[in-house]
Amino acid sequence: MSAKKLGKQTFALTRPPVIRGFGSVGGGKEQEGPLGERFDVISPDDTFGQESWEKAESAMQHMALEKALERAGLTAEELDMLLAGDLLNQCVGSAFAARAWGVPFWGLYGACSTMGESLALGAMLLDGGFGQWAAAATSSHFCSAERQYRTPLEYGGQRPPTAQWTATAAGAVVLGLRGPGPRVTHVTVGKVVDKGITDANNMGAAMAPAACATLEAHFADTGRTPEDYDLILTGDLGKLGHEIVSDLMARQSLPLPRYQDCGLLLFHLEGQDVHCGASGCGCAAAVLTTTLLPGLLAGKWKRVLFCPTGALLSPTSCQQGESIPGICHAVALERGEG
Amino acid sequence: MSAKKLGKQTFALTRPPVIRGFGSVGGGKEQEGPLGERFDVISPDDTFGQESWEKAESAMQHMALEKALERAGLTAEELDMLLAGDLLNQCVGSAFAARAWGVPFWGLYGACSTMGESLALGAMLLDGGFGQWAAAATSSHFCSAERQYRTPLEYGGQRPPTAQWTATAAGAVVLGLRGPGPRVTHVTVGKVVDKGITDANNMGAAMAPAACATLEAHFADTGRTPEDYDLILTGDLGKLGHEIVSDLMARQSLPLPRYQDCGLLLFHLEGQDVHCGASGCGCAAAVLTTTLLPGLLAGKWKRVLFCPTGALLSPTSCQQGESIPGICHAVALERGEG
Repeated sequence: MSAKKLGKQTFALTRPPVIRGFGSVGGGKEQEGPLGERFDVISPDDTFGQESWEKAESAMQHMALEKALERAGLTAEELDMLLAGDLLNQCVGSAFAARAWGVPFWGLYGACSTMGESLALGAMLLDGGFGQWAAAATSSHFCSAERQYRTPLEYGGQRPPTAQWTATAAGAVVLGLRGPGPRVTHVTVGKVVDKGITDANNMGAAMAPAACATLEAHFADTGRTPEDYDLILTGDLGKLGHEIVSDLMARQSLPLPRYQDCGLLLFHLEGQDVHCGASGCGCAAAVLTTTLLPGLLAGKWKRVLFCPTGALLSPTSCQQGESIPGICHAVALERGEG
Repeated sequence: MSAKKLGKQTFALTRPPVIRGFGSVGGGKEQEGPLGERFDVISPDDTFGQESWEKAESAMQHMALEKALERAGLTAEELDMLLAGDLLNQCVGSAFAARAWGVPFWGLYGACSTMGESLALGAMLLDGGFGQWAAAATSSHFCSAERQYRTPLEYGGQRPPTAQWTATAAGAVVLGLRGPGPRVTHVTVGKVVDKGITDANNMGAAMAPAACATLEAHFADTGRTPEDYDLILTGDLGKLGHEIVSDLMARQSLPLPRYQDCGLLLFHLEGQDVHCGASGCGCAAAVLTTTLLPGLLAGKWKRVLFCPTGALLSPTSCQQGESIPGICHAVALERGEG
């Protein structure tokens, strides 16, 4: 057992890295949502001046990191590494965004858990002595996701009540070893969990068991309880997934008193026609960078557990009758001292 | 500057992790190739008993890790983490393979550089104090790749002379902190490099500049020269990419005296109709686990530089007229003492 390992899945960081900068970018529907005014860059034109949705997504991820670097007072050349991923086939959203930076790059695939995965790995690598500055970024785009996962927009497919709406959003953070800002204190690494859900329009139900497994592991490994957190934030389970997690955790005698889900925060559930809420890598990234980090900085919360969830399916795996595996990485964030 | 950082892109591991186990799986064409007899598991039936090529790929990756664990004398429960990725959309080859293990999981996307990325990150995390045991795995399958990237097999499309043949292969390694075996001493993290190649049937040319950039960075950062390595092994550039790297490095006054490419080793270039050679995540993984690691153990080489290369394109990015970004991560391996 290494000094940093707690229990089975959790690591306690010995030099908790600090989030020194963060940036957020959102599209038109995000602008109309409850967090609309908090984005650094927001555009009612979801093309962001690009000629395809995929290129728009790369542009968004690039802008998010630009803002994060600006807040951190850094240039890209000072970054020791960038960790990023997205939902597009072969993660081209991130690869093409990274191309412009010329920064040592780790490509990740964690579906909608990517903001958690990139933040966790970046913090662990800095804590492990691998450089001074790391950036973590992710993005999703409603229009690129719809045509890849479901149907072309022009098809006008009907969305079932359990569907969620992929966020057109990107978020990025810059991690450093010193200075003021929220700190990454613990990481609970998720396992792939599959309880046999096969409905690709019900991602919340597919991912909820992974969120519960990671939360249970986190509490068992750290000896903490849900009461120790001012906020526990999963993402992006949406309305149904949030209900399932609340219910399952209560049955495990771990009721979550202050529990929210990123998928419930990005849009107005009534009035924006998003059914069960928001989804996509950009959802948790946007909530982190527009709400969670500013709230920690402002003293609204002292300690939060950020738990992005991912559904590790593909259209091909669904067509072949496979069920939907989920994953959830938990990252404990604490308000840093000035 | 942290103690482990050398120059701009390289990290020197302070407790060089040891490759304690490795496993390799190959298909029918690989069996007929020059490395055919060295695979742990080889099957003339490329379905591996599964009902789809994608499920066959997951099964292969699972078997490779099974063999690696067996050689390391470990059970999956003892692993602190598994790092894996593949070429399939949303990396389902790895996600479904990981589902069965119940091991904390980091999903990666590095295209054909994934064996380098997973090995590098696994070694860095162990060196950083994050556990005792990490596994790294990847896979590719000719039949799942052809229908995803190019055309269905039944179409019988003509392959241009610069094309490479995606390996039906998987490889896995188990890393630990102690004991005998080859050690990971240095990692040079690649940047995304794009010199404007747009021909998706000429991946070698697209990835060669990334390989050169990483090799140059490695030598500049470490103060080593190509002469310091008994073998430099890129992968999977194939015949044309190997020529380009040889030429470009010589022009940089860094000629590579003992240089090979994984894409040239897996198949018989004459007689197996593979044109420029092998490609796919499984190519570098198979050469590592069938040839490089056994050679290090047998004393054939003392110090090698393993540099898998990835082309970070997607069919969509090509259709949209984008050029092909490449990446290459370099991992220095040294023969360990008994």
